[in-house]
Amino acid sequence: MITVTRLDLNDAHVMLRAARAKADEIGVPMCIAITDDAGNLVAFERMDGGKVTSSTIAIDKSFTASGAKKATHEYGDASQPGKPAYGIASAIGGRLMVVGGGLPVMVNGQCVGGIGVSSGTPAQDMEVAQAGLDAVLATV
Amino acid sequence: MITVTRLDLNDAHVMLRAARAKADEIGVPMCIAITDDAGNLVAFERMDGGKVTSSTIAIDKSFTASGAKKATHEYGDASQPGKPAYGIASAIGGRLMVVGGGLPVMVNGQCVGGIGVSSGTPAQDMEVAQAGLDAVLATV
Amino acid sequence: MITVTRLDLNDAHVMLRAARAKADEIGVPMCIAITDDAGNLVAFERMDGGKVTSSTIAIDKSFTASGAKKATHEYGDASQPGKPAYGIASAIGGRLMVVGGGLPVMVNGQCVGGIGVSSGTPAQDMEVAQAGLDAVLATV
Amino acid sequence: MITVTRLDLNDAHVMLRAARAKADEIGVPMCIAITDDAGNLVAFERMDGGKVTSSTIAIDKSFTASGAKKATHEYGDASQPGKPAYGIASAIGGRLMVVGGGLPVMVNGQCVGGIGVSSGTPAQDMEVAQAGLDAVLATV
Repeated sequence: MITVTRLDLNDAHVMLRAARAKADEIGVPMCIAITDDAGNLVAFERMDGGKVTSSTIAIDKSFTASGAKKATHEYGDASQPGKPAYGIASAIGGRLMVVGGGLPVMVNGQCVGGIGVSSGTPAQDMEVAQAGLDAVLATV
Repeated sequence: MITVTRLDLNDAHVMLRAARAKADEIGVPMCIAITDDAGNLVAFERMDGGKVTSSTIAIDKSFTASGAKKATHEYGDASQPGKPAYGIASAIGGRLMVVGGGLPVMVNGQCVGGIGVSSGTPAQDMEVAQAGLDAVLATV
Repeated sequence: MITVTRLDLNDAHVMLRAARAKADEIGVPMCIAITDDAGNLVAFERMDGGKVTSSTIAIDKSFTASGAKKATHEYGDASQPGKPAYGIASAIGGRLMVVGGGLPVMVNGQCVGGIGVSSGTPAQDMEVAQAGLDAVLATV
Repeated sequence: MITVTRLDLNDAHVMLRAARAKADEIGVPMCIAITDDAGNLVAFERMDGGKVTSSTIAIDKSFTASGAKKATHEYGDASQPGKPAYGIASAIGGRLMVVGGGLPVMVNGQCVGGIGVSSGTPAQDMEVAQAGLDAVLATV
C-alpha cells in the first residue's frame, strides 16, 4: 500500500483565490482549474469574461501538469519539431497540453496536484498559475 | 440580436456554498457543477471524499438541465422503457443525463443556468441541487 | 460505379422552411437538421429558444434516419427491453438515435437523405419532421 | 447575473446568404457555420460540392472564433513552432482551429457570435467568412 498526500478542496480554494486576484490585477478574466495528484479535477472557475474555449484547456493544462508532474511549458520546449517529444501535443485525445499555464504542485519532492490557467497569452496564464501555486506553497 | 441573462461567477459561488452546506448537513461529500444558460461550465467543486466518477456526471447533469431547461429527473420519467423518450440517456455521447440531480435555474420564465450534483443517491443529489438553486433564487 | 440521388442544399432549404413554419404553428422552437443519403450534414438551424442540447440530438436523429433508411421511432420500438435491437441506442458513440423525430427521405424506394428534429416532445419533433419531409416530397 | 447579447437565427441567415454569395462569386462551394457567443451552433450549410470533411472544420472554426473571441488565423500565427501557443491546435479534442476561416462577430467590444468557413484555401475561407461578417455588422 502507498500513502499519498494530495490537495484538498480547501487548498484549491486558496489557489483559486490567489489566481483570481492576480488575474484581476493584470486585467484578464481567466479559466482556472485545480487537479489533485491523480490528475482528477478538484475545482474550477471561469471568471466573468473568461473564454468558453479555455475551460477545457485550463482543465487539461492542470491534468497534464499534475499527471506528468511537469509544467506544461516544459513540454512546449521538448515537443518542438526535431525534439524528442515532438508530436506529444495530440496525445490522450489532445488532453496533453504543451502550452504554458499548467504547473504541478510539488511538496517535499512529491506531486500533490496541479493548476491550469487559460484565457490570456501563455505568459499571462503562467503568471496567474504561479500566483495560485505560490499561495498554496505558502501554507505548507 | 437577442439579449439573454445568465449566471455569473458570483451567483455560482452562492450556489456552491449553499449546496456544500446541505451536503455537509446530510453527510455526503458531493461533486457540484454550475453551468450558464448555454450549458457551459462556470464553476465546479469536488468536496473531499466526493466520487471521482461523479465529476463528469455532475457537470453533465448541469449541462443537461441548463441546455434543455428541464430537470434531469424529468428525463428519467420520460425515458423509461415504453415511454416516448426511451433511449435518450445515451445521446450527445452520453452527456444527456436522465438521473436526478440536475436542475435548471429559471428566472422570469427564462433559463439562466443550471446546477448538477453527484456522489450520493439520486434523492440526495436532488436535495443538494435544490439547496443550491434555492440560494440563488433568493438573491434575485 | 453507382449513381445516387441525394438532397441538395435547395431541397434542404425547402425542408427547413416547412419545418420551421410547423414549429412556429405549434409554438415550439426547434433544432432542425438535414442530412444527405450518406448521413452527412447538409444544413442545420437552431431556432431562437431551441435547446442547446438538442443540436446534436437533431443532427444525430437525421444521421440515423438517413444512414439506416429508417425512422428513429421504429428503432424506439425495436430496442425496448427484450426486443432484438435492445441496446442499440448507445451504438456509434450514442449517435444512433431511437427517439422519434428522425425521418428518412425516400424517393422511388431509395433513401436520398433525412431530417431530424429536437427540442419538443418526441410527438412534436415527429410532427415537425413530417412537415419538412412532406414539403420536399411535394417538389419531386 | 450578467446580461449578454448574441446572434439570433435571423442574423445567421443574413450571414449565410452573404457568405454563400461570395462563395458563388469566387466559384468555391463552401461549408459555412454560424455560432452564438457561447460557441453553440446556430446554423450551418454545406453548399452543393462543399467538402464533407469541411463540415466539422467549419463548425469548429466558428466555435473557436466565438468561444475565444479571436480569429482562427491569429492562432495560426501564435502557434507556429517556437511561438508561445505552439501545440494549441490539438486542444479540446482538436476542436481548437488555428487555420484561417473563423472570425468572431464583435459588436461594441463584445463577442456576440462567430462564423466559420471551410472547403477552399484558407485565404478563400477567410474571404467568404469576412463577407458573412460584414453583412451582419452592416445591420447593427
